[in-house]
Amino acid sequence: MKVVRTVDEVRAELAPHRAAGAIGLVPTMGALHDGHRSLLRAARQAVDAVVVSLFVNPLQFGPHEGFSAYPRGEGADLAVCEQERADVVFAPSAEEMAMESGVTTVTVAGLSEIVEGRARPSHFQGVCTVVAKLLNIVRPDVLYLGQKDVQQNAIIARLVEDLSYGVSITVCPTVRQPDGLALSSRNAYLSSSQLTDAAVLHRALLAGRARIEQEATPEEAEREMQEILAAQQGVEPDYARAVDPHSFKAPKDEGPVLLVVAARVGGARLIDNLTAHRARG
Amino acid sequence: MKVVRTVDEVRAELAPHRAAGAIGLVPTMGALHDGHRSLLRAARQAVDAVVVSLFVNPLQFGPHEGFSAYPRGEGADLAVCEQERADVVFAPSAEEMAMESGVTTVTVAGLSEIVEGRARPSHFQGVCTVVAKLLNIVRPDVLYLGQKDVQQNAIIARLVEDLSYGVSITVCPTVRQPDGLALSSRNAYLSSSQLTDAAVLHRALLAGRARIEQEATPEEAEREMQEILAAQQGVEPDYARAVDPHSFKAPKDEGPVLLVVAARVGGARLIDNLTAHRARG
Repeated sequence: MKVVRTVDEVRAELAPHRAAGAIGLVPTMGALHDGHRSLLRAARQAVDAVVVSLFVNPLQFGPHEGFSAYPRGEGADLAVCEQERADVVFAPSAEEMAMESGVTTVTVAGLSEIVEGRARPSHFQGVCTVVAKLLNIVRPDVLYLGQKDVQQNAIIARLVEDLSYGVSITVCPTVRQPDGLALSSRNAYLSSSQLTDAAVLHRALLAGRARIEQEATPEEAEREMQEILAAQQGVEPDYARAVDPHSFKAPKDEGPVLLVVAARVGGARLIDNLTAHRARG
Repeated sequence: MKVVRTVDEVRAELAPHRAAGAIGLVPTMGALHDGHRSLLRAARQAVDAVVVSLFVNPLQFGPHEGFSAYPRGEGADLAVCEQERADVVFAPSAEEMAMESGVTTVTVAGLSEIVEGRARPSHFQGVCTVVAKLLNIVRPDVLYLGQKDVQQNAIIARLVEDLSYGVSITVCPTVRQPDGLALSSRNAYLSSSQLTDAAVLHRALLAGRARIEQEATPEEAEREMQEILAAQQGVEPDYARAVDPHSFKAPKDEGPVLLVVAARVGGARLIDNLTAHRARG
């Protein structure tokens, strides 16, 4: 496994891999957990060269969203990459990526402004800008993303399509604790009792899914999820929505419904989602 | 020479070229003239595979900026590409590029909003979006641009740097008629007497340059250029500015000054520029 720090190095390192076969990119902000491991394993099975990026992108954090407090621990991250047999780890400095001195932004209109985008203005623009840059640096054939960031994935898929990046996207299922809590680097902010509280996000989603499967309206499912989140001590709900999985607007009368929730638990803002299938009327 | 219509075809066509050596891209909106020829020749001498794109990008035209009237003549354009020994011509349909159904935009803040960008709101965003897409489709090693579009070139250079496209940019000198008129596809809109009138843009730039070389202030040079443009019958000046060649804001006290003019002549809006060098005070 090769650890590289600069754009030039990653290009040089990947040149022979590119000639030999497909390149897979697992873009991360570090603080790797078993969710990231599942992406690395999926990549390892499918492509010839597995590239992991470790970079905490300042542009996707709002003013009070904890950029400087975001968990960083490169030693442990590199050990995970090594164990999962990554070929190249791209771990650039803030100076090398120069996100904050850049004046170029990439924006996916519409999808970036609703639901999670409404809660976090400019977040998805920051995501799109760094993803475009990482795609240009690595030029992967396959991009590996986790289902937990479902709206981000939809936005990146649109970016890739609109700008003809020619990269295919593999989305891997959310990895959960036994109590249902979705793994997240932000869970590191939580005490063990807060971690227990945080499992309410998944319980709310399960209850919402049951409602949708019982042909309740999206509004009824939303109310149910909202009530479950609000009833949990130590949890401050942000939103609980039942939306169309593609547009993130009101669901159509038929077809799957995507349930998305966000809540603050202790010092962490957590998100999660689940897809509910309706019996055809 | 191979003419291809789809993104998939251009990728397939370029794969062997990419393995063999450097790829150069000459992005055009068609209506090729001797200015484009000079780009094709520069590319032919420098790279292994010369790719020309012919695509009139709707996103870079404002509501009344003549998108549908823009000169189109693929037969003549292909003949020029053939004569100049291009390897691949990418001439996609509007449907293939799908610019207007896309929701993703690429923006270079600051530079895109001043001088020409102020005169044409959203123009440079349209340019950046299509350039990013063309770079993703062709993945060239070298991009060939003409000096006439000097502000566009500065914006594209910033886009390439900020998003780490890893493409080098070669800017070729403006090609002019004997009377100084810069070649432009938009000259096709003009009668022969209007073409004669339009040479005033270059005369204004020459006069402005002489002023700067004589240590006049940027404001004095601007006034001189403005007066020369305004005195020409059939010409409606838009702007005549003396700016810093990098920031397009007020020039520094030393170093080169970029003179940029825009004017409407008959049905065409024309731009031109010239760099003036000051003797060090």
